[in-house]
Amino acid sequence: MSRPAPIPASSLPAAAFRAPFRIRFGDCDPAGILFFPNWFAMANAAVEDLFRLRLGIDFHQMHAARGIGTGFVHAAGTFMRPGTMGDEVLMTPLLRRVGNASYALDMHIHRGEEELARLDLVTATTQLATRTSTPVPPDLRAALLRYQDECGNAAGQEIPA
Amino acid sequence: MSRPAPIPASSLPAAAFRAPFRIRFGDCDPAGILFFPNWFAMANAAVEDLFRLRLGIDFHQMHAARGIGTGFVHAAGTFMRPGTMGDEVLMTPLLRRVGNASYALDMHIHRGEEELARLDLVTATTQLATRTSTPVPPDLRAALLRYQDECGNAAGQEIPA
Amino acid sequence: MSRPAPIPASSLPAAAFRAPFRIRFGDCDPAGILFFPNWFAMANAAVEDLFRLRLGIDFHQMHAARGIGTGFVHAAGTFMRPGTMGDEVLMTPLLRRVGNASYALDMHIHRGEEELARLDLVTATTQLATRTSTPVPPDLRAALLRYQDECGNAAGQEIPA
Amino acid sequence: MSRPAPIPASSLPAAAFRAPFRIRFGDCDPAGILFFPNWFAMANAAVEDLFRLRLGIDFHQMHAARGIGTGFVHAAGTFMRPGTMGDEVLMTPLLRRVGNASYALDMHIHRGEEELARLDLVTATTQLATRTSTPVPPDLRAALLRYQDECGNAAGQEIPA
Repeated sequence: MSRPAPIPASSLPAAAFRAPFRIRFGDCDPAGILFFPNWFAMANAAVEDLFRLRLGIDFHQMHAARGIGTGFVHAAGTFMRPGTMGDEVLMTPLLRRVGNASYALDMHIHRGEEELARLDLVTATTQLATRTSTPVPPDLRAALLRYQDECGNAAGQEIPA
Repeated sequence: MSRPAPIPASSLPAAAFRAPFRIRFGDCDPAGILFFPNWFAMANAAVEDLFRLRLGIDFHQMHAARGIGTGFVHAAGTFMRPGTMGDEVLMTPLLRRVGNASYALDMHIHRGEEELARLDLVTATTQLATRTSTPVPPDLRAALLRYQDECGNAAGQEIPA
Repeated sequence: MSRPAPIPASSLPAAAFRAPFRIRFGDCDPAGILFFPNWFAMANAAVEDLFRLRLGIDFHQMHAARGIGTGFVHAAGTFMRPGTMGDEVLMTPLLRRVGNASYALDMHIHRGEEELARLDLVTATTQLATRTSTPVPPDLRAALLRYQDECGNAAGQEIPA
Repeated sequence: MSRPAPIPASSLPAAAFRAPFRIRFGDCDPAGILFFPNWFAMANAAVEDLFRLRLGIDFHQMHAARGIGTGFVHAAGTFMRPGTMGDEVLMTPLLRRVGNASYALDMHIHRGEEELARLDLVTATTQLATRTSTPVPPDLRAALLRYQDECGNAAGQEIPA
């Protein structure tokens, strides 16, 4: 396992999507810092925002009406600095790979310039009814590749992380 | 990133600690399966049980009275099969490494023989008041090494996972 | 609004169902005590246990296979003493009323003899597909009335709380 | 127990504070609707926003630096319509009473004009170190009374709910 080193917020692609979140009292633990599973819950919400605000894909509709799931098959987090209650953080998702029936992204979480956490999230698309693998739907695939391209890395290429 | 393949529950060391958990309605999402951050929250509870029932260390006392934190600096999960509401799962923590101011463990999560998820958790010990690194306290270190030994791998050695 | 006064655990009906729960690190907030919404989440889990272990009704099956929801239309909590991490609590549900398409229960939460919280929960049964009211299914109704009777109050009567 | 009837969003005082929240995938349960304890967690976050954006009191500072807790001694919710994933809701807190060492508010939760839930929240101020009752701090009391007044009901008076 190699753990990423923090990078400043300003070094991320200017064109990347950024979702603001505030760390809440109820997200924190008796140590006074964000309880780490909540980084992942917050990242899931940031992906919902990415879909709605940037990709133009209705995340909820995709699940409820189209019956396609975007569950995670792998999720890793490196926690560099604690988040504390009241902090406003920016979550910046960068697509790393768009595969046939999966895609992978890095979620950078910054407070100001300081990176607090980096998540590596791998999603597999499934038919919810049967819980079997299904290709990334064409509209989602096109939107993901376009976003990846706008962020400055050629589709299908790893970004240096 | 290499993702582990599932292994049957019966292939884990017989002497390992096992914590039973039940997946609850409220832990699951609209896809009807465990919302993945909850695997990590459940693993944190399993570590609390490991401390209390096997290591003989009071996790809560260590935080509240001794002022020592055991926060995670890295947490990765590979989700092999979905957990569904009502499932009873066994969480089996296996220590991988005990360092100077950190320790790492694998958390195997099985439903019957079937591995549903594998988590890789790296903890750093800190002084809660200053949020600075501090050596693993001697009583905790001794207990961790003893548990690692009981599980059949020599202290300080990586287990084949 | 009248708030109930705490009553000792031993004053509850001996025949009542009791579900043990442990308060976890991750359930607590920066004040070091259980974050209050988690009392309600824990109560929902206790109702699942009541169904499985005492009523003989599969809560999850009822939702997933039979398409019947048991959502809450009202939930009130009076929090008498804080719960702290590591506490083991007993949750004792007492049915207060079984109606045509709803039922109400009190959830008593004790740590030893001391009542920490009392919840008043009103459930309405619904068809999940249409989200419309539906009568309490006959098997559930019979089980609820039997349980209420075993706890010593005549079916359909309010217990003195 | 009397349960309130829904009132349209536009009937609330124009001067009241409103906090927007979005219902997330991870907040919802297998019935596809917001898991009810999350209404209370969301309300706690809305109170944090009320403090920061309207009362000018740093909620987190009050807990972490001043050692004053604002825990709930009573919390009741009436759930009129289910919240579903993706919904944007407005949370409108209206103060009902400011006492010596406690205050009470109603939290109205609307989606458009439709009231989804109404929460009745009673807070007691405490010294966190000793967990004993303490008067509402003068700056907080003044801010609460001012807000109550701005919303159009005389300080110390119940609003018709």
